[in-house]
Amino acid sequence: MDEKVIKQFEDRINKIEAILGYNFKDKSNILSAITHRSFVAEYPEKIKDYEVLEFLGDAVLSLIVSEILIKQFPNAREGELSQLRSSIISEAYLSRLGRKISLTEIALVSKGELMQKGTERESLLCDVFEAIFGAIYVDCGYNISKPRAIFKKLFYKDLINDIKTGNIPRDYKSLLQIYTQKHFGIAPKYKLISEEGPEHSKIFTIECKISDKLTTSGKGKSKKEAETEAAKKAYIQLHKTSNTET
Amino acid sequence: MDEKVIKQFEDRINKIEAILGYNFKDKSNILSAITHRSFVAEYPEKIKDYEVLEFLGDAVLSLIVSEILIKQFPNAREGELSQLRSSIISEAYLSRLGRKISLTEIALVSKGELMQKGTERESLLCDVFEAIFGAIYVDCGYNISKPRAIFKKLFYKDLINDIKTGNIPRDYKSLLQIYTQKHFGIAPKYKLISEEGPEHSKIFTIECKISDKLTTSGKGKSKKEAETEAAKKAYIQLHKTSNTET
Repeated sequence: MDEKVIKQFEDRINKIEAILGYNFKDKSNILSAITHRSFVAEYPEKIKDYEVLEFLGDAVLSLIVSEILIKQFPNAREGELSQLRSSIISEAYLSRLGRKISLTEIALVSKGELMQKGTERESLLCDVFEAIFGAIYVDCGYNISKPRAIFKKLFYKDLINDIKTGNIPRDYKSLLQIYTQKHFGIAPKYKLISEEGPEHSKIFTIECKISDKLTTSGKGKSKKEAETEAAKKAYIQLHKTSNTET
Repeated sequence: MDEKVIKQFEDRINKIEAILGYNFKDKSNILSAITHRSFVAEYPEKIKDYEVLEFLGDAVLSLIVSEILIKQFPNAREGELSQLRSSIISEAYLSRLGRKISLTEIALVSKGELMQKGTERESLLCDVFEAIFGAIYVDCGYNISKPRAIFKKLFYKDLINDIKTGNIPRDYKSLLQIYTQKHFGIAPKYKLISEEGPEHSKIFTIECKISDKLTTSGKGKSKKEAETEAAKKAYIQLHKTSNTET
């Protein structure tokens, strides 16, 4: 094997181990986890890409996040919890966590991918993030406690904060509907208030009404965008008033 | 509490513990897991329904099944594995496993639900099945090894067999396409062969062609049904020839 490449492998493995605070017993696990198939294709020796570990890591993270959610929101219903979990275990959100632990500099991709900023893509960052948690799980003998501890140490505070401030890409219209059905037995009502601007760049304003006491409004380039914005405001508002539930 | 009801709780808990080969340290976990919200609504004392445990159990089972799949099919790609996992962690399949361990007789539902055969519904059987694995996980202190051992003891053989014989409700058109793209670099071609019978009850026959050597056909009440049938036959055929991969 090329010494320069081995040095590159070692540097990246050292870097991610330092970030995670975890030394892999079997370095081939973590090497796979950061290796995109484009790198494998152009590399002469036989190495494994991250796909299988990504698949496993998705389930590992899903379980870790499920536990965090049920402990944080013991009174939430299954529908709310599932929605929340799937918006966390998503490309949009996990790629953000991947960026926090510098995966853009750690992932191994082909020269072509690198030129096209492949390591900046959300899908790749999310995949590698999942694969790393899959790798930790395998490396400790298929035990959930280590990956859970590492996830919590690195992301717990931010995650809870992101949930509370609504800083997670979510389907707010569905969430709001689940919430209002559960608590008030009604669905939110949406009403178009205005359409402004020229045909090709209209701005829609939509009102979301829950009750006489709670009405929000949202703006957007489409009705859906405006509705989502209004639903998000109402959802966050409702959670400020009742802090014990999602 | 009503003694007759307590006896009913105890009988059902004893029964499921015997089937699982596991005694719950905290009986309230397993009681929740088998309790539908309709039962809670008509029961005078405060008890918890299965929803939160169902949410957690879904993630527990997803991880257990992921591990089984990657060990069984080490050369499969992420796409195939994900498809397979989601067809296993599905109402259609998990309700079947739930039936095997007699959940139709164990689940607690309201009198109204019972009259309408509520415990026969796939959605309820799947929910309770997931909740039971969530309950085991919680009961052993959030450790995956016990629920994994119980799942494997009860279902491993059947699961592998069901995968090999195609006895799992699956999206065969997508699976076949993933497989043929990977192995042959082509997509299957579908062709309508015949439409028979009167307008309101037509039977479609569709041919699925992979290569000159492999062509299958399927019949169904819609084109989609016929295509799925043909795809399933081709998919199973391909797996008979290559037994080492999904």
